Amino acid sequence: MRPEPSPPFVFPHRHLLGVAGLSAFEIEGLLAASEEAVALSRQVEKKRSTLRGRTQINLFFENSTRTQSSFEIAGKRLGADVMNMSVGASSMKKGETVLDTAATLNAMRPDIIVVRHHAAGAVALLAQKVDCSVVNAGDGAHEHPTQALLDALTIKRAKGRIEGLTVAICGDVLHSRVARSNIILLNALGARVRVVAPSTLLPEGVERLGVTAHRTMREGLAGADVVMMLRLQLERMNGSFVPSVKEYFAHFGLDAAKLAYAAPDAVVMHPGPMNRGVEIASEVADGPRSLIRDQVEMGVAVRMAVLEALSRHLPND
Amino acid sequence: MRPEPSPPFVFPHRHLLGVAGLSAFEIEGLLAASEEAVALSRQVEKKRSTLRGRTQINLFFENSTRTQSSFEIAGKRLGADVMNMSVGASSMKKGETVLDTAATLNAMRPDIIVVRHHAAGAVALLAQKVDCSVVNAGDGAHEHPTQALLDALTIKRAKGRIEGLTVAICGDVLHSRVARSNIILLNALGARVRVVAPSTLLPEGVERLGVTAHRTMREGLAGADVVMMLRLQLERMNGSFVPSVKEYFAHFGLDAAKLAYAAPDAVVMHPGPMNRGVEIASEVADGPRSLIRDQVEMGVAVRMAVLEALSRHLPND
Amino acid sequence: MRPEPSPPFVFPHRHLLGVAGLSAFEIEGLLAASEEAVALSRQVEKKRSTLRGRTQINLFFENSTRTQSSFEIAGKRLGADVMNMSVGASSMKKGETVLDTAATLNAMRPDIIVVRHHAAGAVALLAQKVDCSVVNAGDGAHEHPTQALLDALTIKRAKGRIEGLTVAICGDVLHSRVARSNIILLNALGARVRVVAPSTLLPEGVERLGVTAHRTMREGLAGADVVMMLRLQLERMNGSFVPSVKEYFAHFGLDAAKLAYAAPDAVVMHPGPMNRGVEIASEVADGPRSLIRDQVEMGVAVRMAVLEALSRHLPND
Repeated sequence: MRPEPSPPFVFPHRHLLGVAGLSAFEIEGLLAASEEAVALSRQVEKKRSTLRGRTQINLFFENSTRTQSSFEIAGKRLGADVMNMSVGASSMKKGETVLDTAATLNAMRPDIIVVRHHAAGAVALLAQKVDCSVVNAGDGAHEHPTQALLDALTIKRAKGRIEGLTVAICGDVLHSRVARSNIILLNALGARVRVVAPSTLLPEGVERLGVTAHRTMREGLAGADVVMMLRLQLERMNGSFVPSVKEYFAHFGLDAAKLAYAAPDAVVMHPGPMNRGVEIASEVADGPRSLIRDQVEMGVAVRMAVLEALSRHLPND
Repeated sequence: MRPEPSPPFVFPHRHLLGVAGLSAFEIEGLLAASEEAVALSRQVEKKRSTLRGRTQINLFFENSTRTQSSFEIAGKRLGADVMNMSVGASSMKKGETVLDTAATLNAMRPDIIVVRHHAAGAVALLAQKVDCSVVNAGDGAHEHPTQALLDALTIKRAKGRIEGLTVAICGDVLHSRVARSNIILLNALGARVRVVAPSTLLPEGVERLGVTAHRTMREGLAGADVVMMLRLQLERMNGSFVPSVKEYFAHFGLDAAKLAYAAPDAVVMHPGPMNRGVEIASEVADGPRSLIRDQVEMGVAVRMAVLEALSRHLPND
Repeated sequence: MRPEPSPPFVFPHRHLLGVAGLSAFEIEGLLAASEEAVALSRQVEKKRSTLRGRTQINLFFENSTRTQSSFEIAGKRLGADVMNMSVGASSMKKGETVLDTAATLNAMRPDIIVVRHHAAGAVALLAQKVDCSVVNAGDGAHEHPTQALLDALTIKRAKGRIEGLTVAICGDVLHSRVARSNIILLNALGARVRVVAPSTLLPEGVERLGVTAHRTMREGLAGADVVMMLRLQLERMNGSFVPSVKEYFAHFGLDAAKLAYAAPDAVVMHPGPMNRGVEIASEVADGPRSLIRDQVEMGVAVRMAVLEALSRHLPND
């Protein structure tokens, strides 16, 4: 038995470039549709034909096996023809510009292009040049909307709600599109959001995003319902931002001792891939309060919901 | 509504190794079938089941995201199982020969192998060793038949005909399989073909291919209906062939001033990826007379038509 | 007409980690199911929907175009959604462990993961961490079960039986998972197995695996029904194991003269890719007694049979 979404949620945007600007109603609609996708993916025949005959291109200018796989599986489970295009193997090397690549792909008449790019704003620029839907799979330090949606879905399933929860986002907030999208989306759904990081990894004026900023885990995690760790870019370690991996872990790595500051039923999240012993200890990552694997499962489901929602907005529909 | 080809065009060859030897009737048949594929790709459900259960292997010994993507999308829209195989990731590195690779793939019982290889003649050699159909996706400086077909389709749709048109092919004619296949095909359809290049980039005795050779854009473009630019291999610049990018562009790069030599309604083409400011100026590439994006769209359609035509010639059919 | 397996063979294991431990009955069941897959792959529409809606991930930590392609084609012919994941392009580079990768993939709810890894035992370890079926596509010098199955199928089709045959496995037995799996499986089916290699390439106490060990081709091939050559890792040549390629070929390379030691109707096999002129001469590899291409064809069929057999053991079935 294959469940069909009923009634189909109508998403009033052609692209998903960020969570900024989404209403709580639209976010809730995507999360509800994702629940159906979770159920579908747990069946033996995990397939729906919603996107049959549609062409989905995964255009990754930045390497990300995890996110690309999640979008690939999502598209295939909906029956789409999915084509992966990594820039390492692409004609970008031959000197073609990003916009020429966009125009070329657009001419092949895809329905959806999923884009990851290292520059903030590049995905929105690309979206202006094509006739199809575009999903931002991460652009520089700007946004990563499906990550924020999957995190919200994970929290909601674990806690029953998001409104009123205290969520502590910890680590390299400065460079993190995951942090940025989560802050925006969690605020839109009524959570109280804190960021916890050394001063060098906090954006100046981060409070304007609607968060409180904390320089210690003891203070930032106090009574938190959700502890969301960020991946630390190891190549940025031992430089100007943080003194050493060891010292970073001592102060900001999540272990059982620091987790004890949070609420007794606090849950732990991480977008992956994890640096064990850097931003998170294995005892916590693999512990009973970790939702890290759930996040991955919710990732496929949220992307299915997003692809389906956008497919109702195709130019030639 | 999915259009089915009616009546199915019968293509009397097992392989498409080049345009040399194709009759005008066969070319016209492929172009007519391509028109149906254009229509299909513009629908929401851009899918036909002509190749359901068939196995298509894209075997690329030379990197080409654009051409490989086009063949991949074409095959998937026809319902084929498509497998990409790039040589960078292949066992060629382990010392296997091209013919061993061909024999190995052949034993997996594919129906169609699409091959790009850096050596002229390698694709024809490979075709002799397999039981399935082979499509040449470019072999050295020899042929690139689907490029010539898509260019012809693009011209025909823009101009209503090919016979009697004057087509100027400009740039690195010497190393270009695109030029070679276009010259042969356009001649077969009754166009008048000129080549325009510095002497160092013109093959000796090129006139024997049925073209007139011109050393200046002013002369070569005079009154032309179609201006077809070629990609310049930048690694060949500043060497023996041409003095510098800047000087090359001054003499042979297509800008608005040089385009003015052509007919007032002349169209501009380029096989991509473009070197903007080298062989073509952005004002022309992005201008109203550019058909460069159409070429990409026609590429998918022509490849669908070719795959379908060859699928009626399978050994175990 | 698409044949369906009748009656479906019930394979009592969730994973295929090796041939060790398989009963003759189970092996024969897989070989019989493979015969149906051979027939299917020889049809025009080589497609069955047994795995429709199932997700198959090919997770290759070690490069192998040939084996990965075979599993990819097998999965697609059964209607599965197949996703390739090579470690070169993966987040392993970001410091993620193999088990984190396994846990991440598992959370995406695949039905089957096909794994190749350079370390013996890594695939079994991974299988303990996931909820789906795992197929070992080669782990270090340990096992390569589908290779042994395809070799058995190839022999059985050529000779009508396996029991009582004398099979000589020749070359780098020491490092070969192919040799190891073949020895175990051929013994289980009642063949007499010999290994032939210089002392430096024979594991100590290899006789305990149920083979006789021979240091010369003359002795090892005497009267053999099947001569199975192993691939020599060229990077191991000219080192401690063998003196030089030339000398190795003189003593252990299979040419017509050495093949004459075997039975008059002996057949020749090689798992590929071949080093021509190193472990095998072209006159033999391409000769009338070579089954090397058949092995590749049987490879797809055996993998189809294995994927189908395991699909009846899914956790949520």
